[in-house]
Amino acid sequence: MPIKTDLKPTVDYDSKEYLELLDKYWRAANYVSVGQLFLRDNPLLKRDLTAEDVKVKPIGHWGTIVSQNFIYAQLNRVINKYDLNMFYIEGSGHGGQVMVSNSYLDGSYSDIYPEISQDEEGMKKLFKQFSFPGGVASHAAPETPGSIHEGGELGYSLSHGTGAILDNPDVIAAVEIGDGESETGPLAASWFSDKFINPVKDGAVLPIINMNGFKISNPTVLSRMSDEDLTKYFEGMGWKPYFVEADADSDHLAVSAEFSKTLDTVIEEIKAIQKKARSAAGAQDGEAELPHWPMIVFRSPKGWTGPKFNADGDPIEGSFRAHQVPIPVDAEHMEHKELLVDWMKSYKPEELFDEDGKLKDEIRALAPKGEQRMSVNPITNGGIDPKPLKFPEVRDFAVKFDKRGTEQHQDMIEWAKWLNEVANLNPTNFRGFGPDESESNRLYAFLDGQKRQWMEGIKPGNDHNLANSGRIIDSQLSEHQAEGWLEGYVLTGRHGFFATYESFGRVVDSMLTQHFKWLRKAKEQSWRKEYPSLNIVDTSTVFQQDHNGYTHQDPGLLTHLAEKKPEFIREYIPADANELLAVGDKAFRDYEKINVIVSSKHPRRQWYTIDEAKKIVDQGLGYIDWASTDQGAEPDLVVAAAGSEPNLEALAAISLLNKEFPELKIRFINVVDILKLRSPQNDPRGLTDEEFDRYFTKDKPVLFAFHGFEDLIKDIFFDRHNRNVHIHGYRENGDITTPFDMRVLNELDRYHLAKDAILSVPAYAQKGAAFAQKMDDMVAKHNQFIRDEGTDLPEVENWNWEPLNK
Amino acid sequence: MPIKTDLKPTVDYDSKEYLELLDKYWRAANYVSVGQLFLRDNPLLKRDLTAEDVKVKPIGHWGTIVSQNFIYAQLNRVINKYDLNMFYIEGSGHGGQVMVSNSYLDGSYSDIYPEISQDEEGMKKLFKQFSFPGGVASHAAPETPGSIHEGGELGYSLSHGTGAILDNPDVIAAVEIGDGESETGPLAASWFSDKFINPVKDGAVLPIINMNGFKISNPTVLSRMSDEDLTKYFEGMGWKPYFVEADADSDHLAVSAEFSKTLDTVIEEIKAIQKKARSAAGAQDGEAELPHWPMIVFRSPKGWTGPKFNADGDPIEGSFRAHQVPIPVDAEHMEHKELLVDWMKSYKPEELFDEDGKLKDEIRALAPKGEQRMSVNPITNGGIDPKPLKFPEVRDFAVKFDKRGTEQHQDMIEWAKWLNEVANLNPTNFRGFGPDESESNRLYAFLDGQKRQWMEGIKPGNDHNLANSGRIIDSQLSEHQAEGWLEGYVLTGRHGFFATYESFGRVVDSMLTQHFKWLRKAKEQSWRKEYPSLNIVDTSTVFQQDHNGYTHQDPGLLTHLAEKKPEFIREYIPADANELLAVGDKAFRDYEKINVIVSSKHPRRQWYTIDEAKKIVDQGLGYIDWASTDQGAEPDLVVAAAGSEPNLEALAAISLLNKEFPELKIRFINVVDILKLRSPQNDPRGLTDEEFDRYFTKDKPVLFAFHGFEDLIKDIFFDRHNRNVHIHGYRENGDITTPFDMRVLNELDRYHLAKDAILSVPAYAQKGAAFAQKMDDMVAKHNQFIRDEGTDLPEVENWNWEPLNK
Ligand SMILES: Cc1ncc(C[n+]2csc(CCOP(=O)(O)OP(=O)(O)O)c2C)c(N)n1
Ligand SMILES: Cc1ncc(C[n+]2csc(CCOP(=O)(O)OP(=O)(O)O)c2C)c(N)n1
Ligand SMILES: [Mg+2]
Ligand SMILES: [Mg+2]
Repeated sequence: MPIKTDLKPTVDYDSKEYLELLDKYWRAANYVSVGQLFLRDNPLLKRDLTAEDVKVKPIGHWGTIVSQNFIYAQLNRVINKYDLNMFYIEGSGHGGQVMVSNSYLDGSYSDIYPEISQDEEGMKKLFKQFSFPGGVASHAAPETPGSIHEGGELGYSLSHGTGAILDNPDVIAAVEIGDGESETGPLAASWFSDKFINPVKDGAVLPIINMNGFKISNPTVLSRMSDEDLTKYFEGMGWKPYFVEADADSDHLAVSAEFSKTLDTVIEEIKAIQKKARSAAGAQDGEAELPHWPMIVFRSPKGWTGPKFNADGDPIEGSFRAHQVPIPVDAEHMEHKELLVDWMKSYKPEELFDEDGKLKDEIRALAPKGEQRMSVNPITNGGIDPKPLKFPEVRDFAVKFDKRGTEQHQDMIEWAKWLNEVANLNPTNFRGFGPDESESNRLYAFLDGQKRQWMEGIKPGNDHNLANSGRIIDSQLSEHQAEGWLEGYVLTGRHGFFATYESFGRVVDSMLTQHFKWLRKAKEQSWRKEYPSLNIVDTSTVFQQDHNGYTHQDPGLLTHLAEKKPEFIREYIPADANELLAVGDKAFRDYEKINVIVSSKHPRRQWYTIDEAKKIVDQGLGYIDWASTDQGAEPDLVVAAAGSEPNLEALAAISLLNKEFPELKIRFINVVDILKLRSPQNDPRGLTDEEFDRYFTKDKPVLFAFHGFEDLIKDIFFDRHNRNVHIHGYRENGDITTPFDMRVLNELDRYHLAKDAILSVPAYAQKGAAFAQKMDDMVAKHNQFIRDEGTDLPEVENWNWEPLNK
Repeated sequence: MPIKTDLKPTVDYDSKEYLELLDKYWRAANYVSVGQLFLRDNPLLKRDLTAEDVKVKPIGHWGTIVSQNFIYAQLNRVINKYDLNMFYIEGSGHGGQVMVSNSYLDGSYSDIYPEISQDEEGMKKLFKQFSFPGGVASHAAPETPGSIHEGGELGYSLSHGTGAILDNPDVIAAVEIGDGESETGPLAASWFSDKFINPVKDGAVLPIINMNGFKISNPTVLSRMSDEDLTKYFEGMGWKPYFVEADADSDHLAVSAEFSKTLDTVIEEIKAIQKKARSAAGAQDGEAELPHWPMIVFRSPKGWTGPKFNADGDPIEGSFRAHQVPIPVDAEHMEHKELLVDWMKSYKPEELFDEDGKLKDEIRALAPKGEQRMSVNPITNGGIDPKPLKFPEVRDFAVKFDKRGTEQHQDMIEWAKWLNEVANLNPTNFRGFGPDESESNRLYAFLDGQKRQWMEGIKPGNDHNLANSGRIIDSQLSEHQAEGWLEGYVLTGRHGFFATYESFGRVVDSMLTQHFKWLRKAKEQSWRKEYPSLNIVDTSTVFQQDHNGYTHQDPGLLTHLAEKKPEFIREYIPADANELLAVGDKAFRDYEKINVIVSSKHPRRQWYTIDEAKKIVDQGLGYIDWASTDQGAEPDLVVAAAGSEPNLEALAAISLLNKEFPELKIRFINVVDILKLRSPQNDPRGLTDEEFDRYFTKDKPVLFAFHGFEDLIKDIFFDRHNRNVHIHGYRENGDITTPFDMRVLNELDRYHLAKDAILSVPAYAQKGAAFAQKMDDMVAKHNQFIRDEGTDLPEVENWNWEPLNK
């Protein structure tokens, strides 16, 4: 045996002996993969198979497994041959056995889960736990060693792989992609990732399409395309595709030899691209040419090496029928048990495992060692060199004002200056992502300072702030890509944010759900390291759409994420620039969260000093003394506001009320961290009932001005004593119109607020009638004015906050 | 002048004269497009431009306009030349002026909106209303004649176009696609639409990429690719691309001649493809070969013909700077007014409009006539020949049973038989769509009867239920495509549904929002005809995921859509097959709705006869006498259930309670149409408080077993008298496990329900303690059993409903 892995150069990775061993490695992976599907005992089939040995309800997927095991074994080979830092992403994640089996074979599984030992007993447990209540998922889930990508919801493998290798120049992400997965929108768009990867500063992705011809019950679109058309498709997008093909009758060693040769070529090409780029002039500054990255299309029959035909004579191998459990054998249906036995024995377990069920040493020797095993590559568990972010002093970026509520600033413009400094302090582990909106979202200073990464041609003058190496990637109009790249980036221990139009953040609703699910399940694994938070910045919000109108109105992400487990979700709705700064400073330090930050980008009055803002953000909400008249008394009315326009309008309403009724005791509460208001019954972080009542009283009328849909606030108050709440949120009204009219149409303007407020205070039910009428009149006046002039009333536009009469 | 449109053959569409007139038509469209951006008066620039003539805040988009106007004029030409039935989809819908201007020029705009007349006064109003409060949207919105696609959220143009031409063999959808839009996931995946369009039975889509080089503030990925790479990309996907290119200096007539030639070629190819296919053997049966449909890539400078440079000397035309309003001229900034005047005059309005502002006759004559105008093509307003669906007698498909709650059936299997008959009765205007899940979703009879439409190669034996012409399209794994196609289909007056795994319906959250927005705004237009409802069938629900686990759990679509305007949303959660049948029979008849139908696909006990089911569905909910013991008395406890598993477990809990406490007065309510429970304050259809109290009492404890997230039920009860509700919904727990364990983990199982129920009845607070303990014990027993056996307790699996003790 020529294998001495401590003396790598002496190994002949291309020898027949090596490929034969590799074949055994593959067979071993196949064997334990089938075992996991069906067996609960008798793992080595040492005795006759009985009903007690077989699962009552075998569930899981078969069709994707063998081709993936093949690819995995081949990747192991090149890791050793070329001393690679490589990890695996399983696009068709429903082949959960693949990564479990390979981790088991390379020993890492038993390291992490010692009860799953490298012997017959361990193998038995390995089999039994799979897809079993309380056991392990049939997907490449967080409990799966080496996985950063579950693949439950298909389509994000290549985005994730790309996000992971950004700023990781030594890493190759081997991304297995289902041919069915390739038909999804997100995957189809993610091929354009190649236009952004910088060969100097970033690592490489190696897409490998597992072209097994089928998905659940259909053939796949790509597999029925000719190699010629596929070549065009991928070359057109800038990739360099290589094809390897196996059919049911192919000689396995021949396929293996061909795949090895192809993979060698591909790895050498990746290395050559990187070497050339890294030694070129300009490389220091990250300048580089756009390379044609290689990729592999691997055609093989779905369910390769498995059962050939079903009882009706229909093909299983090479058909959609191979997708899930391909033969009807279970504890209650043992009639065809020989199908299962023959199938498993076809892998010749006796050649693979010793008497005790341990993988034979010479086969095991093929696995890479230590952290080169893809199952324990550090990038897949918290990142290669995870570092907390460094922060500038946030006070240095504060907006200063003489008088509150008079000067106008644009929150996003101010915040971008801080973001730019964060990026300066963390030049290789902080990034911004977006779908062509960073400029529209007013991230000017960040764009100017950091530039956008873009590898296609740049036309100075016509283009703006593009560079081969930039810290922002926002030049693909795809929310899926922006979110997917960011996920890949934070799942590998780095930090960043995705800034998007609030409404179109919802394009990735389900991706956020899946990311949350990953965080939650990963947290249950004690061996999993922490993840930096995923930060979503929703701006260009519903309350000022200008030329875009109704299609661009949707604040519902707040409700959407509030339905998830509260430990993992934070929702911040800062009222002005200083609060936004304070939120950034808090949220970006946090781990294991999805932080949603909703911010205005338009000129808005500024309210809170940075120190006030920090305190409010720290506590989640604050009693605002300068906007309250209930000092030392019970309030008649509580006014609460969450969000920029709600804050402005609530304060303007307080001002109107105070001018008319200086004796009215008003309490103003500014809420930033909206989920803090939830009851501890539902959210461990929530205010206790006592605290809540201290802010909102047990029964006084509460006027709640809210940025989002009103059901979220109802949900909060449902669990509290005080249900005397008048919620003014987004009511799905409005279209192209003025900023103030948007509020009027949703009854979130000062006039509607003030009217509702006064009528809700019992003592003013009569006394307030004239005032209420005045408010109605103002609304009518406004309506006429904007129809005539197309702009807001001067008394609204020029309104400024004045200290209250107390 | 050689133009006599009543004598079409005499027109020489290729003459210099014709192209010169076409150039004028184009300039006229450009002129009124710019006018809409900036002016509120002086539309023909007859006098010096003053501040009063200019908008205070010009808002809207410029960069996309001129190339689209060019395309539009060219399409008019081929409509006349080839006597086409063609309509226009504006992918980059933010160029709202395009379709408005062209509708204005062809006269249809004034027909629909008579105050916008064909004279100076009308033009003035046209200009003023654009992007103005109370005016018209700057997108291709529902108020835009000829539009079925708003393009606010980018990415769906080609899916919509494809959906529209299915079963419309004579129609060509000319789909303008933004080069930025082309980078989105949905658009990138929608190129595969060509693999499904049947040239015999369907019409054609003609994609025209408006390759203007830029999006908001970035260049586009596609535009920086070479023609060679683009050719590969599109050819690889099966299209036949043609290129036309214009740059800032191009001679307009030369470009026009080239575009005309190309468009002629393309139209002739489409006709040839169709003719060949329709006359081939097998065409009768819809058999056909997969053609290579032509498409056009039109390169032109963004902001073509507009301002060249800004004050800093940076390019506007041919740059991202052309995207929105390109020059800083408004009522308050008239310093550079000559920029605007020169720009508008460059189109030579005096050559285009007569003294009174009317488009000159010889130019106007170029527009197609009557319904051949794209602005009033009937397909864009309710469809070409819209017909209500024909229905079979739903009773004929009823599940019959001797004893309630004993026999098991699979709701989706039963329903599929009915669907198949609906399809038989409506062979050209009813379709099912899905992302490769129809088989998994158990639509067996529908698949067997109707087949799946698929134009790539078919391998009998390996494939199943594929045919060139089928009534189901589910062979692309893309929720975006399934939803987009269905939208296109119903927006053109036909009927259908999209069946999906419940969790992955959320992949298209935002598409559903946009469709709802379209419905709502269309309804405000009196001239818009009705749309058949869009039916979403959510199955493979959260409560039984088998091998798929946690990633496949998300019932949140219910909350998501409940946030929209209630007039347009229905949410049905049938408890069994007969209720599902009754829901289908009701929902599919409905118009102008998004119907969400949530159904189990697994074997489940059956509860309601078809007549009971029809009554319950008709009323939205029902008092179930056979499951209640409060006849003639006030109930001690109300139990409500919405959904399959909630219904089963609630009934099992009632059974447990009744056995132990026969004297306890229980009322059982089955809710199907969940939004019926909302207060009329929020939903005009909602039960009045009196009705609600009649069902749920004012204060008795209500145990509510619900399929979805609990906030939706809290939201409902928040507005009601009775807030004494104990909600058991989906609590974001569970993973791969048994069906019953999923319920236990979310405390929606009979034991948790029964315990909570008894403890909520004050008189049983003590009396019920032992029973509550028994329930806890059963949960413990269950937990142990599934860990050991992997299956549910026999007493759960074999449980059957027995009549109550009363
Ligand atoms: C977004 C999404 N839609 C639908 C599904 C349901 N689904 C699970 S597996 C599968 C087929 C996958 O086919 P492919 O990617 O080719 O994987 P393989 O053939 O390797 O199993 C589908 C449609 C899903 N997981 N995600
Ligand atoms: C899904 C989505 N994301 C982002 C936007 C914001 N947006 C509006 S226009 C635009 C650029 C569109 O560029 P392109 O498609 O090339 O259109 P054109 O150049 O013709 O204006 C973007 C990103 C959007 N409308 N939809
Ligand atoms: Mg496949
Ligand atoms: Mg463009």
